[in-house]
Amino acid sequence: MTDSPSDASGLAADLSGPLADPRDHDPVFPFHKGGKIEVRPTVRVRDRAGLSLAYTPGVARISEAIAADPELAYRYTWKANTVLIVTDGTAVLGLGDIGPLAALPVMEGKSLLIKEFGGVDAIPMCLDTKDTDEIVDTVVRMAPGFGGIILEDISAPRCFEIETRLQDRLDVPVFHDDQHGTAIVVLAALLNAARVTGRALSDLRVVISGAGAAGVAITDMLLEAGIGDLAVADSRAIVSADRTDLTDVKADLAQRTNRAGLSGSLNEALVGADVFIGVSAGQVPDDVVAAMAPGAIVFALANPHPEVHPDVARRTAAVVATGRSDYPNQINNVLAFPGLFRGALDARATRITPGMKLAAAEAISRVVGDDLAPDYVVPSVFDTRVAAEVSRAVEAAARADGVARA
Amino acid sequence: MTDSPSDASGLAADLSGPLADPRDHDPVFPFHKGGKIEVRPTVRVRDRAGLSLAYTPGVARISEAIAADPELAYRYTWKANTVLIVTDGTAVLGLGDIGPLAALPVMEGKSLLIKEFGGVDAIPMCLDTKDTDEIVDTVVRMAPGFGGIILEDISAPRCFEIETRLQDRLDVPVFHDDQHGTAIVVLAALLNAARVTGRALSDLRVVISGAGAAGVAITDMLLEAGIGDLAVADSRAIVSADRTDLTDVKADLAQRTNRAGLSGSLNEALVGADVFIGVSAGQVPDDVVAAMAPGAIVFALANPHPEVHPDVARRTAAVVATGRSDYPNQINNVLAFPGLFRGALDARATRITPGMKLAAAEAISRVVGDDLAPDYVVPSVFDTRVAAEVSRAVEAAARADGVARA
Repeated sequence: MTDSPSDASGLAADLSGPLADPRDHDPVFPFHKGGKIEVRPTVRVRDRAGLSLAYTPGVARISEAIAADPELAYRYTWKANTVLIVTDGTAVLGLGDIGPLAALPVMEGKSLLIKEFGGVDAIPMCLDTKDTDEIVDTVVRMAPGFGGIILEDISAPRCFEIETRLQDRLDVPVFHDDQHGTAIVVLAALLNAARVTGRALSDLRVVISGAGAAGVAITDMLLEAGIGDLAVADSRAIVSADRTDLTDVKADLAQRTNRAGLSGSLNEALVGADVFIGVSAGQVPDDVVAAMAPGAIVFALANPHPEVHPDVARRTAAVVATGRSDYPNQINNVLAFPGLFRGALDARATRITPGMKLAAAEAISRVVGDDLAPDYVVPSVFDTRVAAEVSRAVEAAARADGVARA
Repeated sequence: MTDSPSDASGLAADLSGPLADPRDHDPVFPFHKGGKIEVRPTVRVRDRAGLSLAYTPGVARISEAIAADPELAYRYTWKANTVLIVTDGTAVLGLGDIGPLAALPVMEGKSLLIKEFGGVDAIPMCLDTKDTDEIVDTVVRMAPGFGGIILEDISAPRCFEIETRLQDRLDVPVFHDDQHGTAIVVLAALLNAARVTGRALSDLRVVISGAGAAGVAITDMLLEAGIGDLAVADSRAIVSADRTDLTDVKADLAQRTNRAGLSGSLNEALVGADVFIGVSAGQVPDDVVAAMAPGAIVFALANPHPEVHPDVARRTAAVVATGRSDYPNQINNVLAFPGLFRGALDARATRITPGMKLAAAEAISRVVGDDLAPDYVVPSVFDTRVAAEVSRAVEAAARADGVARA
């Protein structure tokens, strides 16, 4: 209802009056009052002639045209620029299974960011079911009016199956951001970390802590990008073919990783490793980080508490990145998803291919350019070149991969 | 993405260039290009501090608060002001079953109007299923993040069951606009038509043509308002208890209507009737209209072709209304749903009661005030007093009926 959005850097919330609340001492609460997004007309209806164009009888001609040729929906409705952000509230930030309603503020935040940085309209959709079949069926039924589906904060391993089944049934991109968004930005940072330390990806030995959504997607992406060797640890040990306690997803992971045949603990695997990527809640002792190879690369992405404190890691590692905004090299999905969906929608892509994700990662790393330094392997999330570069690269990759329809 | 919405009364669409299209000779098509609504941030994120408030880590505190107290979602998300507009595309305008995607332009139009006139955010949701159980389950799963559900253009008789079952399962208003929106405006017009012709509702004998969604809802509403006698005709004959071909819904209708025990055709029933309300695609011959009681009231609402031409009806009837914007007395749902939902959301109503609908109808009729005349029994849809009056009356009725939660 407001024409002048309130400003995060100049809060002016009214803390007095009948709505005063103990929470108002925390600037986060007044900032979120009334939510963070709205739906607005893009056309104005001021008289009967306008009403006849926007609504009956005029709109019937648009509906008839789309009924005759469904592709026209991309031209005469909001579909071409609008995506659903779907969650079941089972893996929200670091909070876990807090339910669909409590996930809504996060989905609104995502909607805000994808509009702000990518110009994409996004609808939060917080589903009151955790059942895989129900989620898939529900999203398929909702899909006609949307140009893409972003899955968000859905716990593993259901997230893998849900994404795969939805993409099989829909002809618009289905993208689980906790997997691929994170993986894209990790690869972007790793490309630059390798460059600044003078090494090739193919020479790196990588250890990933965490075999959930992000861990699996990072693994896939790094293998796709030609990483040398890679092992994944879950909360018990290194994922290896000789373990008998693996889920299907992890057993599959064991087939594709751990070329060196490591077994045992994460800490053992880290001795002499070139790269540590933490996407778990666990901690890594200081001396284990120190036992990594010279010029080590440490991405400690657990939030809000990185697996190792960045100041400590920086004593022995050459490059350190975290998920935090108050340290250098913030690995933030915001670098990826707005430009990625901008590009995918512009190409009217039917899916997000590995090539499109790779193109996004390379575009993010390219923006750093000649400013590359150990403390600057990823651009700032406020660097407006990022979304523009990513969308261009993703759109081109969609065409190259033959999934573009526009 | 635009700050200055294009204007229906001053179309300036670019008809040249690569997007030129044969449809561009019709002003409706350029008007709808890119759709009619967008999602926009209401807060601005310009720096890391803003990002930390709007998204991680700040947003986690909002999510935790809502997880602990779900009612806080009404304060710290868009839920309090946002509704879903749900259709399956089976009964779109006069076009029938054109499917969910072809219904999207109409739902966008509805969203535009409810924001413009009621300040309510509304999300078009065009479902790819016609199965009653699937529609109900899908809407229940989508519901957590929304303050209300508007059902739209769902064919009878499924629309009755879908609405009832959804309202039973949800604690937010569920409202099938084709039924109740139409009924509210019809009653508003009838209140004034009775007044301008000097009669009481309880003295009127009414014949309704059409036993679909609108016909059933108008019947319920007029009975609630204390109409004297009322009979309904479907495409075959007057609905009466002695018919053996009635659906459950019509059999129920037969129990509540036709006190006079009429049978036979619509035209027979109209002889001597005070009021004709047409919500069908049928036609009524001129001489039948002339055979109604002196001072007859004719609401010929079929669109775009009224059951009797208003110029013809006006020769013998005292008051004539249609659904058309180019004749006096336009019966348009836009008079009802924006103010109704504004009031229901402001009261945080758990449902729309008969009292709230009655209050809405009375509020609409009140706006006409002393300007009442045979050709002015309902206000203009552009009369800004309407939504304000309706919302105030509906909010008060919600409190009086004990369904308000705010």
